[in-house]
Amino acid sequence: MYDVHAIRRDFPILSREVNGKPLVYLDNGASAQKPQVVIDAVTRAYSEEYSNVHRGLHFLSNLATEKYEAVRGTIARFLGAPDEEEIVFTSGTTEAINLVAYGWAMPRMQEGDEIVLSVMEHHANIVPWHFLRERQGVKLVWVDVDETGALDPEKILAAVTPRTKLVAVTHMSNVLGTVVDVKAICEGARAQGVPVLVDGSQAAVHMPVNVADLGCDFYAITGHKLYGPSGSGAIFIRRERMDEMRPFMGGGDMIREVHKDEITWNDPPMKFEAGTPGIVQTIGLGVALDYMMGLGMENIAAHEASLRDYARTRLDGLNWLQVQGTARNKGAIFSFTLDGAAHAHDISTILDKKGVAVRAGHHCAGPLMDHLGLSATCRASFGLYNTTDEVDVLVEALELAHELFA
Amino acid sequence: MYDVHAIRRDFPILSREVNGKPLVYLDNGASAQKPQVVIDAVTRAYSEEYSNVHRGLHFLSNLATEKYEAVRGTIARFLGAPDEEEIVFTSGTTEAINLVAYGWAMPRMQEGDEIVLSVMEHHANIVPWHFLRERQGVKLVWVDVDETGALDPEKILAAVTPRTKLVAVTHMSNVLGTVVDVKAICEGARAQGVPVLVDGSQAAVHMPVNVADLGCDFYAITGHKLYGPSGSGAIFIRRERMDEMRPFMGGGDMIREVHKDEITWNDPPMKFEAGTPGIVQTIGLGVALDYMMGLGMENIAAHEASLRDYARTRLDGLNWLQVQGTARNKGAIFSFTLDGAAHAHDISTILDKKGVAVRAGHHCAGPLMDHLGLSATCRASFGLYNTTDEVDVLVEALELAHELFA
Repeated sequence: MYDVHAIRRDFPILSREVNGKPLVYLDNGASAQKPQVVIDAVTRAYSEEYSNVHRGLHFLSNLATEKYEAVRGTIARFLGAPDEEEIVFTSGTTEAINLVAYGWAMPRMQEGDEIVLSVMEHHANIVPWHFLRERQGVKLVWVDVDETGALDPEKILAAVTPRTKLVAVTHMSNVLGTVVDVKAICEGARAQGVPVLVDGSQAAVHMPVNVADLGCDFYAITGHKLYGPSGSGAIFIRRERMDEMRPFMGGGDMIREVHKDEITWNDPPMKFEAGTPGIVQTIGLGVALDYMMGLGMENIAAHEASLRDYARTRLDGLNWLQVQGTARNKGAIFSFTLDGAAHAHDISTILDKKGVAVRAGHHCAGPLMDHLGLSATCRASFGLYNTTDEVDVLVEALELAHELFA
Repeated sequence: MYDVHAIRRDFPILSREVNGKPLVYLDNGASAQKPQVVIDAVTRAYSEEYSNVHRGLHFLSNLATEKYEAVRGTIARFLGAPDEEEIVFTSGTTEAINLVAYGWAMPRMQEGDEIVLSVMEHHANIVPWHFLRERQGVKLVWVDVDETGALDPEKILAAVTPRTKLVAVTHMSNVLGTVVDVKAICEGARAQGVPVLVDGSQAAVHMPVNVADLGCDFYAITGHKLYGPSGSGAIFIRRERMDEMRPFMGGGDMIREVHKDEITWNDPPMKFEAGTPGIVQTIGLGVALDYMMGLGMENIAAHEASLRDYARTRLDGLNWLQVQGTARNKGAIFSFTLDGAAHAHDISTILDKKGVAVRAGHHCAGPLMDHLGLSATCRASFGLYNTTDEVDVLVEALELAHELFA
């Protein structure tokens, strides 16, 4: 039994008010709030168990190392990765995808090689590839979504040519909520020998993920959206791809030996983790993932599906509001515009006065905004602690905004 | 009046026991403990004030953005930077130096170009340059320290040739404690048109730093050593160097516009800050730096100088112990070996039984270890909360180790 009201009590910030109104936090697509267990884990790590990891031999260092390294296994379980050594800790998805771009793609891509990506990628899964375009003449091949915001896997596969070196695709759009059939893409791409990178920043928050089942080569997640600390994250990298990668950032921990004229690397995954890592954040991320798995990813997905359906029905009832993204398979993310001159920023400001936190802007998805012919939308994005009552508050606030701007 | 006993009460972990003994934490060179104000700031940020930054328009997002961005000014004050826009947030020194290597050095260095560095650099200030050696034929020019571990600025300057594109040097050795006359190096290098990168990971923790006075081009600091959260840090980059840099990591925030075939960058410093940053860590770092400035960096330095003198005298009295690094100007960092077969790791294990946390190993300084002809040392590194009583506990524990291994 998924008791959302009990769950809400796990998140201290949800009981606060904003502008004299109860906080209705619908900005989960940007970042999620943290349960008390995560906050407590961070506090405990700093207050009682803090030290640098790996290189110490004293009690606190061993303790911190043990707690830190255990998270690799937690992430592997969370993602269904066959081996925890295929998990690399990062500061988030952005660093994760840059690691792949610099460590795997950059040394192996030539001028004219191609990367296939969907038009609804987040900038984190675009800009690293633009670097390769600008710096070494790699071609970006864009695949459009249909009028509902759905992405046909066949269209991605049809864009693959003998020059294609990588498919880079989101598992769930941060703007439209569209869920992508990544498994079909991976199957088809693998048949043509093309690796697939999946941006799981949104999807891993909202549904069960199993990278072995998906068959992807890279799967990036970001801790701050997963109810974990800011500055935490990880990427699953299939062993064969890891073996092909050179290091990205240089520093401590990722080396075996450093001399004046010679250097040898540590084994993966540490080969890709330079310097003192985000120790406490990673420990907190482990607790966050345990919290989510404790609730059950299937249960979270079911709860959010009912929120999505309820929100869809309520928003569909507002005939002056245009929701972007109506794919059959979508998460509880609603981007919308209002009839008339109201700018998305003005709408979000009105909603804020009612305690409703939504985001307004391009949502780090420039090519999608071009595709939609919009410069900005408002986005209400739901999480595991949101309720249908909050959908009602959102709708009331939107009605007020509509009145004000009509 | 610097009341070290009152200060100790600010750090909750210092009242804990380890192996039944009061914790004597002398592993500050690896990472420092956190005062309650920092822990409280992190807790508050997650419990009451959390949101993603920059792109939101709602109350919590504005609040988090304001607190986060204010830290830029705090760091600028802490480092004496003329303009807070010359401060780039990073996850620590490693990312900071990789930013310079990838963003500034990589696109402008040709085969045969030279980087001058001292033999006592930390791997964070070595490996990124080794990448340039391996990948594009840049030559690393090493400058030795003298028998006391001191680095003669003239020797660095004598190593500069017309092919030198960068001097990269630590401000304080993490192994020997040697303080480097960075100002003299910067003056001389600047006269020859060569930029200087300073690794301030250790120095900024222990003494007042003023980058304007030093005249450096890059100055990197790492938050976890500065009594701040793990995964926080920053780098000062002189405006002219920033203008020469291309972006390092790609993602949100560092762009102005992203289209399918075209991309434009945000202005510095955000041009160099990709994706959702370490929001809460950075807020915590600001509080840590305010805490240090509240105590007064001159006062911290004076306290640690007296600890250094006391420790030096006590350790000098142990004629079976060899301290590495006896430079006149050094911080309270003591690396040592013991007569006989005792391995550094065994010594640190004995010390740990007495509650004394020290580090053993190569301290991420391979070339220095080669120079010293050692594979490992034990290192006791002091911080603002350590006491002369703790030096006595260290010495007693060392005497025990000596007895056991003699």
